[in-house]
Amino acid sequence: MAQEEVQNGGPEKVAEVRFTALKPQLMVEASKAADAVQFYKTAFGAVEAGRTVYPKRKAEQEQPHVLSAQLELAGSTILVSDIADNSTPVKTEGTGCVLCLETEDVEAAIAKAVSAGGVAEGEVTEGDGACCGGRVGKVKDPYGYVWLICSPAKKCGDAEA
Amino acid sequence: MAQEEVQNGGPEKVAEVRFTALKPQLMVEASKAADAVQFYKTAFGAVEAGRTVYPKRKAEQEQPHVLSAQLELAGSTILVSDIADNSTPVKTEGTGCVLCLETEDVEAAIAKAVSAGGVAEGEVTEGDGACCGGRVGKVKDPYGYVWLICSPAKKCGDAEA
Repeated sequence: MAQEEVQNGGPEKVAEVRFTALKPQLMVEASKAADAVQFYKTAFGAVEAGRTVYPKRKAEQEQPHVLSAQLELAGSTILVSDIADNSTPVKTEGTGCVLCLETEDVEAAIAKAVSAGGVAEGEVTEGDGACCGGRVGKVKDPYGYVWLICSPAKKCGDAEA
Repeated sequence: MAQEEVQNGGPEKVAEVRFTALKPQLMVEASKAADAVQFYKTAFGAVEAGRTVYPKRKAEQEQPHVLSAQLELAGSTILVSDIADNSTPVKTEGTGCVLCLETEDVEAAIAKAVSAGGVAEGEVTEGDGACCGGRVGKVKDPYGYVWLICSPAKKCGDAEA
């Protein structure tokens, strides 16, 4: 890539930054991360690629806290972590991050997630959902996260809902 | 793929479900989605692949609400949406979904995000972060979402932090 010349005294250049991966990290109340990982495996067929744990810090602690479990799901990676004892909770102030999972079989996916312990919310609806039209259903997992189960996105940009 | 035989009267089979994509969807207070999209472009170099909008519903509404804007970022897709007037806010009850962006140049990435309007939180730390070790910094965007800017993940599973 061509390097631009930086002029002395010119406005500060903002560096070109390349990002190599984007991974949603789901923070869960300690020490539920291990259970959450199991849920995502059972409900969505996620495959665990690795897990980093803290050493146990307290004698009464039943299982080590999960610093980060890495799950492969639908060609993406998600991280699941216990909120550390000593860390500030990373409370999202936005109106909420939802995880949109695309599949050809919305009903079967919801049924499977529900049989694993998720709770279906509302009906499967057509179109006026989130993922550029198509059919959309909603499942809340036992750890508070909302998953949209959607049929594959149509081309965005033209449609007016 | 081999089809398993379903036995009459046997336990209900849970269908094999294939997911083709996972897309974090960031819900923002209406009608800030368009601004949020611009922020993610400026701060992180996201590229907009499409946008679906609602028709304007009120005369005083300055811009149409965004049903879903699709952004390509670091090989993944994120969706940015205005919370619709008539929809229940999808408030996450979990302890919060964080977005982990990997880059070789953590400091430059944070500087760029801050110059776009993000707020750096804390110092860049080594190791005891979230993304399987490496260097980690944190930026909160103007829409309430927390982004971890991390150096690329080491192999999970062996390390004990």
